Amino acid sequence: MEKVREIVREGRRVAKEDPRRVVHSFKVGLVLALISSFYYYQPLYDSFGVNAMWAVMTVVVVFEFSVGATLGKGLNRVAATLFAGALGIGAHHLASLSGSTGEPILLAIFVFLQAALSTFVRFFPRVKARYDYSLLIFILTFALISVSGFREEQVLVLTHKRISTVIIGGLSCVLISIFVCPVWAGQDLHSLLASNVEKLSFFLLDFGDKYCETVEDGDIKEVDKRKNDFGNYKSVLNSKSYEESLANFAKWEPGHGQFRFRHPWKQYLATGGIIRQCAYRIDALNSYLNGDFKVSSDIKKKLEEPLRRMSSESGKAMKEMSISFKKMTKPSSSDLHVQNAQSACKSLSSLLNSGILKEVEPLELISLLTAISLLIDIINLTEKILESLHELASAARFKNKIEPPVLAAKPKAKSICGRPTKCHGDHVVTIGNDGYCDDTSKNDNRSLEVLIHEKQEEGDTHLHSSCDSCCHNSLRVVVECR
Amino acid sequence: MEKVREIVREGRRVAKEDPRRVVHSFKVGLVLALISSFYYYQPLYDSFGVNAMWAVMTVVVVFEFSVGATLGKGLNRVAATLFAGALGIGAHHLASLSGSTGEPILLAIFVFLQAALSTFVRFFPRVKARYDYSLLIFILTFALISVSGFREEQVLVLTHKRISTVIIGGLSCVLISIFVCPVWAGQDLHSLLASNVEKLSFFLLDFGDKYCETVEDGDIKEVDKRKNDFGNYKSVLNSKSYEESLANFAKWEPGHGQFRFRHPWKQYLATGGIIRQCAYRIDALNSYLNGDFKVSSDIKKKLEEPLRRMSSESGKAMKEMSISFKKMTKPSSSDLHVQNAQSACKSLSSLLNSGILKEVEPLELISLLTAISLLIDIINLTEKILESLHELASAARFKNKIEPPVLAAKPKAKSICGRPTKCHGDHVVTIGNDGYCDDTSKNDNRSLEVLIHEKQEEGDTHLHSSCDSCCHNSLRVVVECR
Repeated sequence: MEKVREIVREGRRVAKEDPRRVVHSFKVGLVLALISSFYYYQPLYDSFGVNAMWAVMTVVVVFEFSVGATLGKGLNRVAATLFAGALGIGAHHLASLSGSTGEPILLAIFVFLQAALSTFVRFFPRVKARYDYSLLIFILTFALISVSGFREEQVLVLTHKRISTVIIGGLSCVLISIFVCPVWAGQDLHSLLASNVEKLSFFLLDFGDKYCETVEDGDIKEVDKRKNDFGNYKSVLNSKSYEESLANFAKWEPGHGQFRFRHPWKQYLATGGIIRQCAYRIDALNSYLNGDFKVSSDIKKKLEEPLRRMSSESGKAMKEMSISFKKMTKPSSSDLHVQNAQSACKSLSSLLNSGILKEVEPLELISLLTAISLLIDIINLTEKILESLHELASAARFKNKIEPPVLAAKPKAKSICGRPTKCHGDHVVTIGNDGYCDDTSKNDNRSLEVLIHEKQEEGDTHLHSSCDSCCHNSLRVVVECR
Repeated sequence: MEKVREIVREGRRVAKEDPRRVVHSFKVGLVLALISSFYYYQPLYDSFGVNAMWAVMTVVVVFEFSVGATLGKGLNRVAATLFAGALGIGAHHLASLSGSTGEPILLAIFVFLQAALSTFVRFFPRVKARYDYSLLIFILTFALISVSGFREEQVLVLTHKRISTVIIGGLSCVLISIFVCPVWAGQDLHSLLASNVEKLSFFLLDFGDKYCETVEDGDIKEVDKRKNDFGNYKSVLNSKSYEESLANFAKWEPGHGQFRFRHPWKQYLATGGIIRQCAYRIDALNSYLNGDFKVSSDIKKKLEEPLRRMSSESGKAMKEMSISFKKMTKPSSSDLHVQNAQSACKSLSSLLNSGILKEVEPLELISLLTAISLLIDIINLTEKILESLHELASAARFKNKIEPPVLAAKPKAKSICGRPTKCHGDHVVTIGNDGYCDDTSKNDNRSLEVLIHEKQEEGDTHLHSSCDSCCHNSLRVVVECR
C-alpha cells in the first residue's frame, strides 16, 4: 500500500510539474485507439489487412511530446521507408534474375551489405545527431521488404501497403500533435533561456543583501551557509543537452505564434552557452563563499558598497533581460544596468588602488580577490549575454519595447527628463527633478556618472529607457552626445 | 566527386578513431543475414510464417554497440513483450465475453487506457532513465496483440509465435555481441576515467613549464596564447552524459576480465564527477591565463618556483593515478605527490606572507591571486580525486601494486635508502646516497620536507614508494615515525 501511495504521489508531482504531460498521454491513447479501428471495421481491414499493424507501430514509435520531435521522427520514418522500399524492390528484382538457387544467396548478401554499411554510417557524428532514427528504419524496411518479397509474390502491393499505412500512422500523429494542445519545442527553448537568465538574476540580486547581512550580523559563517538555499541557478549548469535537443526539434517545427519557420535557433544555443558560462562562475562564487571565504568583517565592510552595487546592477540587468526576452521585445534598460555595474567595478578598483589592501593578510587577500575577480567575470559575462541577446533579438525580429503609457500621460515629467539636443563631439548635460520616479530606495548617483564617462551613443530611446527604469533619486543627469 | 571523397575521408576517420565500429557493423550485417534465413528455408518458414519478421525487427532495434546496451535492450524487450502479451490475451478474453458489438468498443477502451497510462508513466524520471524502452514495447505489443487478436482467432498461437521470434532475435544479438569481439561498456567507462585523469595531468605537467617560459621569454602574451594548444582536457568537461549512459549499460553486463557482475559502477560516476569538477577549475585557469593574466614578470618570477612545483606535483599525482587505474592496481606514490603539492602550497603561502605582495598593483593582484586560488583548488581536488580512487580501488578490489624488481635486484640501494626503525613520537632521519636514481632533472628537497612535517604514518611501504618515485637528487632524507 505504501508503495502504491508513493507512486501516486510521484505521479501527481510529475503532472503538476508540467500539466501538458497529462494532455499528451490522453492524445497518445486517443490516436492509438483511433488507429486500431483499422482492425475493427471490415472496409478498412479489407484494404490493408495485417499491414494495419504498421500504422499502430508508427503511432507508438513516432508520437513524441513536442511537435518538432514528432514531425522530425515522422518525416524521418516516412522518408526512410520510401527510400528503403524502393531499394528493397530493386534488390528483389535483381535477385530474382539469378534463378531460384541464386536468389536467397544474393538477397542474404544484399541484406548483409546494406545492414553493415548503414550501421557504420550511423557512427558518423553528424548522421548520429540528426538521422540516426532514419537509418534504423532504413535497415529495418530494406531487410523486411527485400526478404519478405522473396516469399510473397506481390512485392509491389506489399510495399505499397506498408508505405501507405506508415504514412497514415505518421500523419495522424503529426496532425493531432499540431492541432490538439500543441507542445512547441521552440516555445519551450525560448522559455528555458528566459527562466535560466531569471535564475541567475535571483542569485545576483540576493548576493548583495546576503553579503551585507554577513557584515552586519558579524556571524559570517552562519549566514554564508544560507546561500545554499538560493541555489536556484544550479539547474542552469546542466541544461546543455536539453537545450540542444530542443533546438534540434524546433528546427522541424512550422511557424507558430511569433516564431517563424527559420527562427534563429542556432543563436539560441550560442546565447544559452554564454548564460551557462556565467552560471559556472556563479557556482564557483557560491561554493567559494560557502567554503573558504574567511575575510575579516572590517575589510568586508569597506568593500561592501561597490560589491553590492556590482551584483545588484548585473542582477537587475539580467532580470530585465529575462522579462523582455519572455515578452519577445528588445531589451532596453539592461544596457544602462550593465554600465552601472561596470562603473561600480571602476569605483571598486579605485578603492582597491587607494591602498586599503595593505593591511590585509595574504590568505584573506586570496579569498577576497578571488571573489572579486569572479564577480568581475560575471559582470563581463552579463555584458556578453546582453550582446548576444541583442543579436538574437534582431535576428529573430523582436519588437521594440512599447513605451509604458505613463510617459505619454505625464508630458511634464518627460520634459523634466530633458529632451536631448543632437550634437557632435559635445556634451549636453540636463539636470532636472524627476517627477515620476517614486522608488527612492537606492542611490544611483554612480549610474549617472557612467552615462557621462562611459558610453554616450544612444539618443532619444536611451534617454527614455533610463527615465523608465533607473531614476531612483530626484537629481538626474542626462547626457547625450554624438 | 569531391563530396564522395569527403565522405570516404570521414568514414576512414570514424573507423580509425575506434576500429571496433567496423567489427560491430560486420556483426550486425551477419546476424541480420542469418535471421533473414528464416524466410528462405521452408522448414523454418513453415513454423514461424510471417512472424519471422519480428525476429528481423528485434535484431535491428536491439543490437547495440556495447554488450551492456544490447543485453539491457534485449531483456527489456523480451520482458515487455511477455508481460504485454499476457495482458493482451487477458484483455482479448475479457472483451470477447461482451459479445460481438461490445468487443471492439471494449478493446478500444482498453487500448486507450493502457496507452495513456503507460505514456504518462514514461514521464517519471526514474522510469525514463532505465525503462523507457520497455514501456514503448509494452504499449506496442499490447496494442498489437489485443487488437489483432480481435481478427485472428488463434490469439494464443499468434502471441506464442511473436514471443518466440522476439526471443530468438534477441538471443542471437546477445550471443553474437558477447562472444564475437565483445565491446564492454564497463571496460569503456574504466578507460574513459583513466584517460580523463591523464588529460588533466597533461595540462598540469605542462602548466609549470609554460608559466616558466612566459617569464623567461618576457613575451607574455605570445606564449600564453600557446596554452590553447594543450586544451586536451576540454573533452572532460562534457563527458557527464556519456559516463552515465556507459554506467547504465555496464550494470547489465555479466562479469568479464577483472570486472565482476556487481562492480561498483556508481562509485565510477562519483569519481568521474570530481574529475570533472577539477576540469572546470582547469578550464577557468586556462581561459584566465589566455585572457586577463597581466602580471609583471618580476613578481611572476618570484612566485615561479612554488607555483611550478604545485602544478607539476599534482600533475605527477594524476599521471600516476591514471596509470595505476589503467592497470587496476591501487595508486601508491600519488599520496606522496599530493603531499608534495600541498607542501608547495605552504611554502607559497609563507612566501606571500613575507610581504612580496606589497608592491603589486591591485589589478595585477587580482589576476595573480585568482590564478593562485584556482591552482590551490585544483590541488585540493586532486586530493579528493585520490581519495575517491582509493575508495573505488578497495570497492572494486584492485590489486596492490607489485614492487618493481629493481628493488629486489639492488639490495645495496635499498639499504642506502635506510631501513626505518619503528618508533613512537620520535623522528628518525636517515641520510643516504641514492644509488639507483638517475633522474636528476628536478630538485625535490621540499618533497622530503613534507615527509618530515606533514604526514608520518606509513611504514615500509611508504618508504619504498618514496624511493621508487621521487628521489631525484642524490641526497635523500627519509623519515618514518609512529
